[in-house]
Amino acid sequence: MPTMSTLHELLIDELNDIHSAEHQLVQALPKMIEGANSETLRQALAEHLVETEEHVNRLDEIFTTLERSPGGKKCLGMEGLLAEGAALIGDDGDPDVLDAGIIGAAQRVEHYEIAAYGTAIAHAEAMGHSEIAARLKKTLAEEVAADRRLTEIAEGGINRLAATEFGEGETVES
Amino acid sequence: MPTMSTLHELLIDELNDIHSAEHQLVQALPKMIEGANSETLRQALAEHLVETEEHVNRLDEIFTTLERSPGGKKCLGMEGLLAEGAALIGDDGDPDVLDAGIIGAAQRVEHYEIAAYGTAIAHAEAMGHSEIAARLKKTLAEEVAADRRLTEIAEGGINRLAATEFGEGETVES
Repeated sequence: MPTMSTLHELLIDELNDIHSAEHQLVQALPKMIEGANSETLRQALAEHLVETEEHVNRLDEIFTTLERSPGGKKCLGMEGLLAEGAALIGDDGDPDVLDAGIIGAAQRVEHYEIAAYGTAIAHAEAMGHSEIAARLKKTLAEEVAADRRLTEIAEGGINRLAATEFGEGETVES
Repeated sequence: MPTMSTLHELLIDELNDIHSAEHQLVQALPKMIEGANSETLRQALAEHLVETEEHVNRLDEIFTTLERSPGGKKCLGMEGLLAEGAALIGDDGDPDVLDAGIIGAAQRVEHYEIAAYGTAIAHAEAMGHSEIAARLKKTLAEEVAADRRLTEIAEGGINRLAATEFGEGETVES
């Protein structure tokens, strides 16, 4: 980690952290999609994978604006979060319970990103980088929406199915 | 990780994850407090340390209610988040910039807990464990408040000080 002499250096470090986090998520989401049982959940994660790829592009554009290159930092936070999610995939348990667990892991990931983008936006704004802040806000809004969608999916049936002993195959009200 | 055959087992696993997370945070917060420059920030982190110790007690009570013992799981998510925060402590940079970075690290921690408690509450409620859900909600409210307090401290002056090249010692409007 470089010495944090200026807020500009801290912002670059944060953007590198988020870039690594989003990149790790692009790698991990296909396995989460494969491990999910509910079609609604698979679809929501697949849509978020497309968004996440766009988030990486948006960060690349920001690095270009700042005349810097991303890289050189591995986001340890996201690494730990994804390791937790990976432990669920391939578990031999009840499919609905695993879906409930996958949603929990995915919401931890979304909250990591919500906090990380929130901080980076505040720092960009403090330095008057309004265009960069606007781009980061676009992504933040999508992370918040993804988190809400996961709550809806959990509350829309998966938690109820998971709570019943033989939940799999039961009818769920939407 | 045990096989996730029931939502009850998933909830126990989640509570173990949170127990480990809170325990790691109790260990890490004193170093964050020591590393912080702003007195307001040090005080907010110190108050949250007291709350965090109470969160561990509350979890111990929940384990007693469930006739289970906590342990056997290390929260990898929190481990990664705290490793990121630790990298800032002892950095030779500008004190206000480091404070801005410490706030960013602490807000990632708060968001981890917000997501983790949110999921555990939803799962407890799905199984009708209303008393357990109520206890978890009490902690969740304190995590949300701690996150907001950190935003207030950042916006109340630290980000502005960090954005100025020779910020240290400047007067800050509150």
